Amino acid sequence: MTRTVQKFGGTSVADPECIQNAATRVQAALANGERVAVVVSAMAGHTNQLVDWVETLGGPLADRAEHDVVVAAGEQITSGLLALALRNRGVPARSLQGWQIAVRTDNTHGAARINSIDTEAIGRVLDAGKVAVVPGFQGLGPDGRVTTLGRGGSDTSAVALAAALAAARCDIFTDVAGVYTTDPRIVPRARKLQSVTYEEMLEMASLGAKVLQTRSVALAMQYNVPVQVLSSFDDEPGTMVVADERMMEHQTVAGITYNRDEAKVTLVGVRDQPGVAASVFGPLAEAKVNVDMIVQSVSPDGRTTDVTFTVAATDLSRAKEIIEPHARDLGCQRIDADGGVVKISVIGVGMRSHAGVAHRMFQVLGERGINIQAISTSEIKISVLVPEEYTELALRTLHTAYGLDAE
Amino acid sequence: MTRTVQKFGGTSVADPECIQNAATRVQAALANGERVAVVVSAMAGHTNQLVDWVETLGGPLADRAEHDVVVAAGEQITSGLLALALRNRGVPARSLQGWQIAVRTDNTHGAARINSIDTEAIGRVLDAGKVAVVPGFQGLGPDGRVTTLGRGGSDTSAVALAAALAAARCDIFTDVAGVYTTDPRIVPRARKLQSVTYEEMLEMASLGAKVLQTRSVALAMQYNVPVQVLSSFDDEPGTMVVADERMMEHQTVAGITYNRDEAKVTLVGVRDQPGVAASVFGPLAEAKVNVDMIVQSVSPDGRTTDVTFTVAATDLSRAKEIIEPHARDLGCQRIDADGGVVKISVIGVGMRSHAGVAHRMFQVLGERGINIQAISTSEIKISVLVPEEYTELALRTLHTAYGLDAE
Repeated sequence: MTRTVQKFGGTSVADPECIQNAATRVQAALANGERVAVVVSAMAGHTNQLVDWVETLGGPLADRAEHDVVVAAGEQITSGLLALALRNRGVPARSLQGWQIAVRTDNTHGAARINSIDTEAIGRVLDAGKVAVVPGFQGLGPDGRVTTLGRGGSDTSAVALAAALAAARCDIFTDVAGVYTTDPRIVPRARKLQSVTYEEMLEMASLGAKVLQTRSVALAMQYNVPVQVLSSFDDEPGTMVVADERMMEHQTVAGITYNRDEAKVTLVGVRDQPGVAASVFGPLAEAKVNVDMIVQSVSPDGRTTDVTFTVAATDLSRAKEIIEPHARDLGCQRIDADGGVVKISVIGVGMRSHAGVAHRMFQVLGERGINIQAISTSEIKISVLVPEEYTELALRTLHTAYGLDAE
Repeated sequence: MTRTVQKFGGTSVADPECIQNAATRVQAALANGERVAVVVSAMAGHTNQLVDWVETLGGPLADRAEHDVVVAAGEQITSGLLALALRNRGVPARSLQGWQIAVRTDNTHGAARINSIDTEAIGRVLDAGKVAVVPGFQGLGPDGRVTTLGRGGSDTSAVALAAALAAARCDIFTDVAGVYTTDPRIVPRARKLQSVTYEEMLEMASLGAKVLQTRSVALAMQYNVPVQVLSSFDDEPGTMVVADERMMEHQTVAGITYNRDEAKVTLVGVRDQPGVAASVFGPLAEAKVNVDMIVQSVSPDGRTTDVTFTVAATDLSRAKEIIEPHARDLGCQRIDADGGVVKISVIGVGMRSHAGVAHRMFQVLGERGINIQAISTSEIKISVLVPEEYTELALRTLHTAYGLDAE
């Protein structure tokens, strides 16, 4: 029989009523002839409460192993409650904790990686015709202690379990209807995508579309697990996240994302000589400051040049501090820092075969008078940095230009 | 080095501040050169919240195994939090869950009995100079699932752990200062006892003094574990619960308890013939209705008699229903039921060697015009049933009569 994994996020199990609703979703899958393993998050808000207690009592350097003991309790509670709701409807079900399965992880408490999932215990439950309800986010470390996978880790738990069980599909139930062409709060004509490739989803997830954890998408791609993102609050199909080859025809552009959590740094008038990049970015890398976009202007006089790069907004002041002495050594006249920028990205695997996507982007933004401050590209993505106040205008303009608007 | 077990009840770990206070108690024991294992309850109120969810989703017949998964999370949380508070003070500490130790129980989910406690893992932690923090109330069933010991089971966990670790003492921290001669809310001159024997404590616990779980006292007696009941909110010594032979001299009467959860049933005018008791009490036993006191009046005419007995107030209407047909067969003229009664008990191992305790009880109650409706006695206890409205008068009168009043 077909095995599927269903995952319910925090808002989908926020209270007893939501948990009943999740139970209805499970029953629908069973009625469809599927054997179902369910992965649950903690009730919305509960993890925050637990983390708050951990920080109050454990201090800023709270022991991660004990942190994991405390916060894993949130998912444990929901797993038992959903099993109870199912049993109360006459559906055979039981919970299996991370240590019972076991979901084996490395020893990085608070941000553990899954090494393997034993399928014997859970397979026995499924083969007996029962629903297995599994707390997401938690695992068992090599020392026999509870580990957690880090924030949002339940998506990863679900995909890993789907891979281990060779499940036909992993349904991620959440509070949005699926993956949209862009943020519907900014562009009302945004459309829900029927499907999207793993690579597109990866770019979209890491660029600010907070639908799916990046880690879980990478895992799904690696094990070729079809993932569906859908709402637990309506009956519409969601968005399928699948391998490239499963999609009959690609959109040229699948979606447009934005990320306001970027800040721009410009070193004005540094000497134009070999090794400039190394002496600026080496110290940043050592200090674990991630640099995203980098632009070095062509030197007009052959002697000096401007170097522009972006970092996370939260790293801005630290980045400035780190590079200041090095910039002086390079004869830098001035360091400009600007937190008021947004990175806008156009994403689509179709770009591989369609020329002109970038050209069109620059053209329409230019027509609207939006100044592009930096550009970076990958095989399936073009990102531009523009002043933050143009976020809405840029998104709407691009959404229309690539033909993504809903009718 | 001396090992001790400290147990903190729900009100003693109710919030982060209380947990800090508990950490201070642990540090005091460490400063005293003790190796400490700590048993914690769930934060006050948390178990009720979890049980409420279980009943909402699981219904009246909620699966007990899943119930245990959910409610055990409460103690898991506190165990991690107390370990964090200790580590934050530089005290080496770690939590060990029931399944990690393991605390092995039978399979009676929701009311499991402890079969054995492995001491290897926890012994290693203690021998390494660390504090072991253990969630009370929970264990590991024979099927590898989480079990719970039933309400108040954390006292039992603590005493069982103290027995397994051959601990010198088990300190039960709670929100009262110790065991009192009677309820101080009713008798202001009640005194805290310095010590009390296991047997006295057993009688007091099962008769309504809600300081210690009866099960935990029976276990302490069986393994001869010295237990101290004390407040976590002041620095006074509490009450030691110890074996009879450890006490230099006994009070004749250690304490006076009352229990309002009793109801009286009288079968008036049943035929006085052999087998009456069996035909009344057999059906009640079959229906698992516990009968406490039984009085059969002497038959004045040799033909009919009255049979009076008490049951828990919650069982009263069911008890009446069950015996009605049988009472008719015995020619019973009328069944009287009375919920307005209280059972008052005088307890003390000294009764074994002191005559006249019962006589004094009947005498002083009679002097106050309090009518005794039933009497039952054991080796170290005399209980009387009186109208409920005399509770306070009876308690105060007896407390004075046995010389228990505080100066």
